[in-house]
Amino acid sequence: MNQVQKNLLIKEVLHMGEMASGAALTVPVYRLKGQGSGPGVYIQANMHGAEVQGNAVIYQLLELLQGLTLLGNITLVPYANPVGCNHKNGEYTLGRFDPITGVNWNRMYHFNEQQIPEFSEQHQASSIEVIEQAFRELLLADIADKLDHNVFGLTTGQRIAYQLQKMAHKADLVLDLHTGPISSKHLYCPEYAIDSARYFDIPHTIVIPNSFDGAMDEATFCPWWTLQQAFGELGRELDFNKESFTVELGSQEQIDLDVAYQDALSILSYLQYKGVIADASFQPQAMTRYACYLKDYKAFYSPMGGMVDYLATFGEPLAAGEPIARILRMDNYGDGDALHYLSLDRPVIPILHFASASVNQGTELYKVFCEYFEL
Amino acid sequence: MNQVQKNLLIKEVLHMGEMASGAALTVPVYRLKGQGSGPGVYIQANMHGAEVQGNAVIYQLLELLQGLTLLGNITLVPYANPVGCNHKNGEYTLGRFDPITGVNWNRMYHFNEQQIPEFSEQHQASSIEVIEQAFRELLLADIADKLDHNVFGLTTGQRIAYQLQKMAHKADLVLDLHTGPISSKHLYCPEYAIDSARYFDIPHTIVIPNSFDGAMDEATFCPWWTLQQAFGELGRELDFNKESFTVELGSQEQIDLDVAYQDALSILSYLQYKGVIADASFQPQAMTRYACYLKDYKAFYSPMGGMVDYLATFGEPLAAGEPIARILRMDNYGDGDALHYLSLDRPVIPILHFASASVNQGTELYKVFCEYFEL
Amino acid sequence: MNQVQKNLLIKEVLHMGEMASGAALTVPVYRLKGQGSGPGVYIQANMHGAEVQGNAVIYQLLELLQGLTLLGNITLVPYANPVGCNHKNGEYTLGRFDPITGVNWNRMYHFNEQQIPEFSEQHQASSIEVIEQAFRELLLADIADKLDHNVFGLTTGQRIAYQLQKMAHKADLVLDLHTGPISSKHLYCPEYAIDSARYFDIPHTIVIPNSFDGAMDEATFCPWWTLQQAFGELGRELDFNKESFTVELGSQEQIDLDVAYQDALSILSYLQYKGVIADASFQPQAMTRYACYLKDYKAFYSPMGGMVDYLATFGEPLAAGEPIARILRMDNYGDGDALHYLSLDRPVIPILHFASASVNQGTELYKVFCEYFEL
Amino acid sequence: MNQVQKNLLIKEVLHMGEMASGAALTVPVYRLKGQGSGPGVYIQANMHGAEVQGNAVIYQLLELLQGLTLLGNITLVPYANPVGCNHKNGEYTLGRFDPITGVNWNRMYHFNEQQIPEFSEQHQASSIEVIEQAFRELLLADIADKLDHNVFGLTTGQRIAYQLQKMAHKADLVLDLHTGPISSKHLYCPEYAIDSARYFDIPHTIVIPNSFDGAMDEATFCPWWTLQQAFGELGRELDFNKESFTVELGSQEQIDLDVAYQDALSILSYLQYKGVIADASFQPQAMTRYACYLKDYKAFYSPMGGMVDYLATFGEPLAAGEPIARILRMDNYGDGDALHYLSLDRPVIPILHFASASVNQGTELYKVFCEYFEL
Repeated sequence: MNQVQKNLLIKEVLHMGEMASGAALTVPVYRLKGQGSGPGVYIQANMHGAEVQGNAVIYQLLELLQGLTLLGNITLVPYANPVGCNHKNGEYTLGRFDPITGVNWNRMYHFNEQQIPEFSEQHQASSIEVIEQAFRELLLADIADKLDHNVFGLTTGQRIAYQLQKMAHKADLVLDLHTGPISSKHLYCPEYAIDSARYFDIPHTIVIPNSFDGAMDEATFCPWWTLQQAFGELGRELDFNKESFTVELGSQEQIDLDVAYQDALSILSYLQYKGVIADASFQPQAMTRYACYLKDYKAFYSPMGGMVDYLATFGEPLAAGEPIARILRMDNYGDGDALHYLSLDRPVIPILHFASASVNQGTELYKVFCEYFEL
Repeated sequence: MNQVQKNLLIKEVLHMGEMASGAALTVPVYRLKGQGSGPGVYIQANMHGAEVQGNAVIYQLLELLQGLTLLGNITLVPYANPVGCNHKNGEYTLGRFDPITGVNWNRMYHFNEQQIPEFSEQHQASSIEVIEQAFRELLLADIADKLDHNVFGLTTGQRIAYQLQKMAHKADLVLDLHTGPISSKHLYCPEYAIDSARYFDIPHTIVIPNSFDGAMDEATFCPWWTLQQAFGELGRELDFNKESFTVELGSQEQIDLDVAYQDALSILSYLQYKGVIADASFQPQAMTRYACYLKDYKAFYSPMGGMVDYLATFGEPLAAGEPIARILRMDNYGDGDALHYLSLDRPVIPILHFASASVNQGTELYKVFCEYFEL
Repeated sequence: MNQVQKNLLIKEVLHMGEMASGAALTVPVYRLKGQGSGPGVYIQANMHGAEVQGNAVIYQLLELLQGLTLLGNITLVPYANPVGCNHKNGEYTLGRFDPITGVNWNRMYHFNEQQIPEFSEQHQASSIEVIEQAFRELLLADIADKLDHNVFGLTTGQRIAYQLQKMAHKADLVLDLHTGPISSKHLYCPEYAIDSARYFDIPHTIVIPNSFDGAMDEATFCPWWTLQQAFGELGRELDFNKESFTVELGSQEQIDLDVAYQDALSILSYLQYKGVIADASFQPQAMTRYACYLKDYKAFYSPMGGMVDYLATFGEPLAAGEPIARILRMDNYGDGDALHYLSLDRPVIPILHFASASVNQGTELYKVFCEYFEL
Repeated sequence: MNQVQKNLLIKEVLHMGEMASGAALTVPVYRLKGQGSGPGVYIQANMHGAEVQGNAVIYQLLELLQGLTLLGNITLVPYANPVGCNHKNGEYTLGRFDPITGVNWNRMYHFNEQQIPEFSEQHQASSIEVIEQAFRELLLADIADKLDHNVFGLTTGQRIAYQLQKMAHKADLVLDLHTGPISSKHLYCPEYAIDSARYFDIPHTIVIPNSFDGAMDEATFCPWWTLQQAFGELGRELDFNKESFTVELGSQEQIDLDVAYQDALSILSYLQYKGVIADASFQPQAMTRYACYLKDYKAFYSPMGGMVDYLATFGEPLAAGEPIARILRMDNYGDGDALHYLSLDRPVIPILHFASASVNQGTELYKVFCEYFEL
């Protein structure tokens, strides 16, 4: 690639937190400017500390994007949560939740649904451009207010989440790069954007409703979906063309730059489809894609403590009654059952399993698709 | 005390969980039978792992109660959550939430509000005795259903919470013994039961609304309060005389049997007031009691990382602008401010503070009463 | 296999510790009686909490051994350290060291070298049978003394280690089943027993000297080796035929019963070679076996913090200068080196690597054989 | 104090480590220049993460020292170990050992005893000034070599320890500020420097031998003590006037700037005695000072799991048989002993106890002076 053709990369560093010694935790932000004709994109990675592979995907995206024709602006944020990312405990990284409060780092984003009825009535007659700009400003003002006006302060996670959300609200398309514990690739996709799911090289999609539970994807698509519905009730059918996905890249605690390159291609296929990049050579791979609704994405909890031999293969339909795992209980050897085979009473597709063989009674063993269908 | 006069103590052991080695975690349950003329009582301790002092209070209660005249039945459960109680991490006990999921152990109880409208309509003409019995059966059936019919299993915390709740629903008065991190004594009290707060030797009361957030106290009083309101809307004013309190005994990670004896007397004062024990010599101490509403019980988050010298005295009103803490930042010595004084913009009563001097930006430093009033 | 032919399995349960709630932690001990003509064997697993696969190997050994002709007695102890085995922290198991003191669970065994000169002089003229029996009694008395006479008590780990050691000293051959973090199979073998290493289906052997550092293998072979040397200095060449190995089965946090079956066959091959079992069909697999001396088994520490893409393949010689890993540093992207390739200045065989991609500066990245040779 | 009179304070920042996100961990170093007639001093704090009070003492020392007449140079290093200091786990700080390896942060310093015989022979006829300078250079060269020439890298803790040791070796007097868990003030003092212990306002002194175990105090006094002995064997009695102390300031997890001011005065009393500062007004407080030898400083381990009510008062002699603690075992209530009183078989002075009431069997409950004597 010719150095001259490279798109200009702008780097900023955000202050995200301070530790006990006063050490600052910062986050690098990379911006690529597009020609203005395509939607804006926001991509972040590593909100959960152990889910590091997204950083490698952002590396590969940056390498690739600098040589492509960009129609929209793209912002990329690796190490989005440096508190979680640096929270080693023993050999592993314990960054799914604030270690002091237990609150999931990806449940601290903000959405104030109450503002919408008033807003939609106020803009009943506005053009979609005016509505879009005004609503975006409302979302941004709301976040600015949370960041700036807080007599009693912000939690560690709110300070991080709100700063990230401020950047994400400026984009039209949002990708939050996560991983499972030990996991196949899967995608959380808002119901209305299901067509887009086919453009990722990801075989499993969880279809989620318009229900805000604090996550980044929800915090960026729920406002627009809710607004669209509010206008729908007022008789106007609007499409703001906003999409947000949580992209689960595979297993945690792993960096693989070669796999990351494939994942970058998958994201470029989606961005090409949405008109962010001009190069038609980025196309999705042919594959069987399964989906299920969020309500049918079930966690299966261990009926006993023990040591688990995980048997089921990710992504392959498993018939009712087929063993999904077997649990070793050597304390029972000789005078009880030392091996317990576990199965479910319905057909499922196993998507991910727990990161360790050692489980307590009640530990989440597997997450599975029930009532799945081809996409 | 004469051995002959001792009330009969019945002990059971409940299976609460299993660890990876198969080791069973059990909970001892102590029951004292009353004469049947007073309300039933359920007292548990140590739902959060580090909050151990309640076990010592149950010890002292058991010692005292065996020699008293009991009008109602009393069930006492120390070590209510053996998973949390045994979750040492380094020197300390990390038992505020499930270490795998981050979910607070005291947010996993169950209340199905949807059942109430149908129930109240159905029992519009029933006697209060019939209503009470039928509703208690409904609550118990609901919990039994959660425990028994779960294809995908229960989480570690649900299994514990539901078993405890099954016992608590059989009682009329519920005391859940907790502690703060480093803390004064305080009480969470439902709004309608505020008169009872004066019978505990506890100077600070947080008045809580009828809003279920998963805690034991809420799980046991919200159903009855909601039922009462439902009947109110149907024109019947009923009082089921159910009360639940979360009793915060002081600081975590400490056992003090002498202080526990005082706390046991405080609980006996309340039980005497409610007619559970017959001995009128158990009376509350004279003290100034402050209260505030839950919405005015505020957490103050650290505006910076650093090392905290906690200055404010628990329980004493602190004027607006008075220093509540100072934060040492030696990294700034010589070329910045090494000492930062923190204060609030309104009068407060500090109730508890964080357990460690070392804080990140955004760590909860203090919890304080705002808009407090004398009880 | 015919039920009638099964060897008698005797099970005992040892009390190994108590947790804060009083819950007892126990260890199951399985004993199979041999015909008395072969050496005695002691096999334990899971001394380190996350290293669980040895339990599955013991399961498969128990299944197989019950149907074989046993010449010597065999004792098998899964879950040898229930404190470590149950020490979950977040999703993972943190059981390499006592979480309060930091002391490695496998560095708390006992060996009192000072006793040996006196003993050997005393038994200068004794028969080897007398020496062996007297010395075994000395070792056992020494451990009994540590367990029983301790005014100030024992640490959690000493209580466990000494109880295990008491059983191990009664055997002639000791296998301590461990795993690496993410690892190939490898074997720690005392220098004098190197011929035996060829009977395990394990391609990498670390040859260790007669130097006691607190581990189970050392605690059981160093005394006999030292005794042999002491007699050597007195002019008597004795061979007590004692061997101890630390068997590293692969990666931690995993149970795989099928792989465990293969590992059980590998152990049976060794036991057949040593005359513990009579069935000559258990033979080692043909494979290239590499070895290096303990002093040449090197840990390679990360020169920087970052996220690691581990590149080197376990077990394959890696030339000097070839990349062993690359470290991603997204904070440097755009204005520094985002990818750092690491290599070593000499040929090595990578044996294991760290369990997580996220490392601090100074984290152990790899352990490698230097100066390796074919066995 | 007049601004003009203030001694010049020079600040440097050392790079001590990097985390997974690439964030640098740095340490501030403060230097005050003396008139050259007194010994040089090195003071560090917070090598163990939870032991933060020393930072406050350094704050107060800096405030005081800037206005005093300094005869020797003084170097002060707060937050000496930023990895440990920032290693929060839950509410607490887990910084006594490297969380990955378990190695105590204060056991990674370096001392190569083997060099000394050759050195002393070589300098048999040198003047004490030449010996002192040459030996200091040898120590510094040795550390520089450890820092710079390491093909396989350094562990996280070695990199920190060696950088600190490089500064400490340049001084004559070394103070390493620590704390116990919950603890009285005490002092580790080399046997030959016992007279100096009386100049600290610290009532308990542990007298330590010339035995290197990896700690900062040992790493700085053992070389000189060993050198002095080597010259003694050669017939020269030399006194290099080097002293090192580990100063245990009280309990961990606490910052108290007022107490820190008192501790600063105690250190100034010692520095005045040693001729580092000229102001004779800094004098030790009158108090009974107890001491014992390190071999008589005993840890007492819990004979059972349970919840501990610590009874003994720090610093007060406790007679043999008097209760030191009682352990609550509610699981035994009703059918066993719910309260166990613990005592020792000899008179002791309790110095510190464990940080939590919840203990496993084998947890260190207390550390006590045995065979104590007045200083």
